[in-house]
Amino acid sequence: MPVSDVKALTFDVFGTVVDWRGSVSREIASLSKERGLDIDADLFADEWRAGYGPGMNKVRTGEWEWIGIDAIHRRRLDDLLVRFGIEGLTEDEKVHLNKIWHRLDPWPEAVSGLTRLKSKFIISSLSNGSVALLTNMAKRAGLPWDCVLSSELSGHYKPDPESYTKAAELLGLEPGEVMMTAAHQNDLRSAAKSGLHTAFVRRPDEFGNGTGLGNKADPETDTSFDFTANSFNDLADQLACPR
Amino acid sequence: MPVSDVKALTFDVFGTVVDWRGSVSREIASLSKERGLDIDADLFADEWRAGYGPGMNKVRTGEWEWIGIDAIHRRRLDDLLVRFGIEGLTEDEKVHLNKIWHRLDPWPEAVSGLTRLKSKFIISSLSNGSVALLTNMAKRAGLPWDCVLSSELSGHYKPDPESYTKAAELLGLEPGEVMMTAAHQNDLRSAAKSGLHTAFVRRPDEFGNGTGLGNKADPETDTSFDFTANSFNDLADQLACPR
Repeated sequence: MPVSDVKALTFDVFGTVVDWRGSVSREIASLSKERGLDIDADLFADEWRAGYGPGMNKVRTGEWEWIGIDAIHRRRLDDLLVRFGIEGLTEDEKVHLNKIWHRLDPWPEAVSGLTRLKSKFIISSLSNGSVALLTNMAKRAGLPWDCVLSSELSGHYKPDPESYTKAAELLGLEPGEVMMTAAHQNDLRSAAKSGLHTAFVRRPDEFGNGTGLGNKADPETDTSFDFTANSFNDLADQLACPR
Repeated sequence: MPVSDVKALTFDVFGTVVDWRGSVSREIASLSKERGLDIDADLFADEWRAGYGPGMNKVRTGEWEWIGIDAIHRRRLDDLLVRFGIEGLTEDEKVHLNKIWHRLDPWPEAVSGLTRLKSKFIISSLSNGSVALLTNMAKRAGLPWDCVLSSELSGHYKPDPESYTKAAELLGLEPGEVMMTAAHQNDLRSAAKSGLHTAFVRRPDEFGNGTGLGNKADPETDTSFDFTANSFNDLADQLACPR
């Protein structure tokens, strides 16, 4: 279907809509200070995030039964607390800390960009975060979703094809009427294989300034995407959404 | 769990949030006029709605495989077009007419009441309408859901218990942290059996002024609900939500 048939935009969230690294790092830095520790908060954030893909892959390959994102984050957190020497947290404090992934701050232009895109399209999350996580995050950050969709609803984490096709089905649309929007090319390439349109949005600061694990934002090499944009507002311009 | 633990309100939609009868009747009256017919539009609306419960029950009892709400509405519509002598609609026109259930108007105070309730609670639909229907409806009517939940996500129509427990699970909450809000007592009684709290909101005009099939709004006989209110704004007052 031509890109002019697109009626809904589905959005990757971690890194695309919200700055997970800055948000986690700020909270860890504050905890570190509070406890008189000397933790590299950026590294902690990167290491926490680094447990996410492998955890989901264990679900995707069947090594683990389906477990939700909170449980994946928690398994990694328990390891990291030991590694970084953070001791004496109560269970309630650990639960609260683990839920920082529900409290991530959006990129500064994300809400205004989404609001413009919403004037012309259905906008929905399509994240590996759970419905609960995405709902809590949206409420706190003012993300103006028309609908909160998660790969949880298909029982398959992205980039499994079911996660994309289920989202289109739940929206009552053909895959070709949906455009996946993400800062990560593998997400978009997988969406495209399932028939969705694709918009790449650059988020050069996703992995920070070279501290932590020194990961880099996804380089832009793929010219097959329908759109490539510097921000949601840039994408809204390209899609002729009113200001 | 005490009612003070409630963190999310889930809402029945047809009749509780939106005036399905008035909305359908207006569109049928307009179609009738356009085609020079003399259709009792209120009766058409009531008859259409009357196919909804039995259709879902066929799914609930296993007589029908799971089918979505659009298909249930369409089967009934095809019968009614014959019964009411509406001829010559194209397939596209029938699809559009069937989707009137995505275009229902809210009760006049619904959006302001929901907005107040949202300031203190997570608010979500929990309807037998599909995610697509509820998303389209919310976008058109400005319903400020934090999250669009549907019994579709459990594969069980209300009042099956799975529809309520799945909603709580997707919100990451215990059933006792969720309050079902509806104008229909059977919905609330079933929710209560699954451990949810309950708020009954009177919608005396749901079935109109005695034309059509002459159905009546649910009488208020059950004193077991946590709250009974005359409107969403009244419920917001009782729950001490700011104006």
